[in-house]
Amino acid sequence: MRCRKCAAGATVELRRHHTAFCNEHFLEFFERQVQRAVEHERMFTPDDRVLVAVSGGKDSLALWDVLRRLGYQTTGLYINLGIGEYSAESHRKSVAYAESRQAELILADIPETYGMGVEDFARATGRVSCSACGLSKRYLFNKVAREGGFTVVATGHNLDDEAAVLLGNLLHWQTEYLARQAPVLDSTHPGLVKKVKPFFRIAEREAAAYAIIRGIDYIVDECPNSVGARSLLYKEALNVLEQAAPGTKQSLYWGFLEHGRPLVQGRGDADLRACLHCGQPTTGDVCAFCRMTERAAERMRIRRAGVPTATTSTTSTASIS
Amino acid sequence: MRCRKCAAGATVELRRHHTAFCNEHFLEFFERQVQRAVEHERMFTPDDRVLVAVSGGKDSLALWDVLRRLGYQTTGLYINLGIGEYSAESHRKSVAYAESRQAELILADIPETYGMGVEDFARATGRVSCSACGLSKRYLFNKVAREGGFTVVATGHNLDDEAAVLLGNLLHWQTEYLARQAPVLDSTHPGLVKKVKPFFRIAEREAAAYAIIRGIDYIVDECPNSVGARSLLYKEALNVLEQAAPGTKQSLYWGFLEHGRPLVQGRGDADLRACLHCGQPTTGDVCAFCRMTERAAERMRIRRAGVPTATTSTTSTASIS
Repeated sequence: MRCRKCAAGATVELRRHHTAFCNEHFLEFFERQVQRAVEHERMFTPDDRVLVAVSGGKDSLALWDVLRRLGYQTTGLYINLGIGEYSAESHRKSVAYAESRQAELILADIPETYGMGVEDFARATGRVSCSACGLSKRYLFNKVAREGGFTVVATGHNLDDEAAVLLGNLLHWQTEYLARQAPVLDSTHPGLVKKVKPFFRIAEREAAAYAIIRGIDYIVDECPNSVGARSLLYKEALNVLEQAAPGTKQSLYWGFLEHGRPLVQGRGDADLRACLHCGQPTTGDVCAFCRMTERAAERMRIRRAGVPTATTSTTSTASIS
Repeated sequence: MRCRKCAAGATVELRRHHTAFCNEHFLEFFERQVQRAVEHERMFTPDDRVLVAVSGGKDSLALWDVLRRLGYQTTGLYINLGIGEYSAESHRKSVAYAESRQAELILADIPETYGMGVEDFARATGRVSCSACGLSKRYLFNKVAREGGFTVVATGHNLDDEAAVLLGNLLHWQTEYLARQAPVLDSTHPGLVKKVKPFFRIAEREAAAYAIIRGIDYIVDECPNSVGARSLLYKEALNVLEQAAPGTKQSLYWGFLEHGRPLVQGRGDADLRACLHCGQPTTGDVCAFCRMTERAAERMRIRRAGVPTATTSTTSTASIS
């Protein structure tokens, strides 16, 4: 198979695009895809300060890498979730990338700040791990971005991720979740920072190919808590379809954005106000993160004085430059 | 494992219902499920004359069998599609069921009436076989029902069938098809007979279990044209999900009926009028079936005199009592 652009031997085949590229032209294609997503969806401009959520995995490090090359102002945010060796390894990969590229990385440490990790939150409050983890990450993305004066948070969610979440929401017809699924979530409250997913057009294996060709050293292991997770099951089912009909994931997700989402628009909207405890935006009096951490602290017999309030910082932010 | 009702050894496990039954209580459960669907969705009453579309497969023969046992007035309709040995075998199974149960069966014969089978229609008009076949069956269901004074047509589509069609429609976001997917399609025109799917709550393997326990001899082979069909691919993907999370198909389809369908209601509606050639309801001047058969006849150099019009019968109806 030959590269579509230069007729050299192709290294990456993109079945859903009926094409193939050599390394050099794949990188060119990939970066153009991301740039187009950023511009077309009005995610941010070169004037924005973009906080890139970095997990040490291929998607987030590839995203950070592309955005830096495209000339955007980026800072990484790594959150230590306290998941044993998995967190230790993902921390090392994130720091190594930042140091080797002279890129600024903010570190937030959940066990250091809250005296326990996300698995403890989950155990103490009867949530599943992935729920406690997701809630914690969304909370800290917004808090760190807001405190650091960032105008937008970018995450590495790719087409496979979004299609799997969409399939899950459709299998259970969660119309409020459907309404909130989009590549751009604009700020709807002064305390809520805009969130974007510049890889929503990028397949998982394309992000992996980019990371490998660019020599990015990322953590390959999945989070140990994701074993048996529904999202992996949904990906498996979609892979059965994609294998037989390349382009299925794209058709599902892009079709949803064009035809499905307008049907549910507005269903996920809620009036936001400042959490009475931490000041972050919430639909109730006290936000879900404060409720979770406070309940966990109580359960673990940690003194209430350790609970975050609006006036204490909940992240340890150390810049690496 | 024990039967939930009588503690005898269970023969049928229903994982999505977290239960199991012996033969006798499975049949009781199954028939109650169908009766509930018929009554709850107001499909028909004992006063209606129901035309049951029979293919010789487990679903349609099981449906016919249950409806007869529940005391509804039913007549079977078998359509010879002209698909070689598959049609011959399915014909034999349908006739054998009707004869052994003293049940009335109408036979419609496409090759005899049109001089060619559905595969010829497909070849001559550039359609895929399943499209030509589906169009032909829908056309004849309605035509035979209308001419025979039936008030409703019942088909054996089960939960697996409906979930697979729904998944396909979602993967391509065909909102007009989504709007028309329902267990009951009411008559919206004097020439259009109501269509119902009393098995929309019944899983494929439940229909098979019913047919086996009742000693119904059905054709096991799938239609040879369905090899590689998208519907089988969608079933495969849904089976991956159902295996890991029993109840997924039910959640997808029933959730759609409750939450998804109201979002698209009315999108599939169209003004119907009588086809200028055959008088059956259509959105245009000449219905899709007439256009297909006429084009096929032209292509196959068959004299135009053989084309059906509003005044000629297109079915050979032979009652077996």
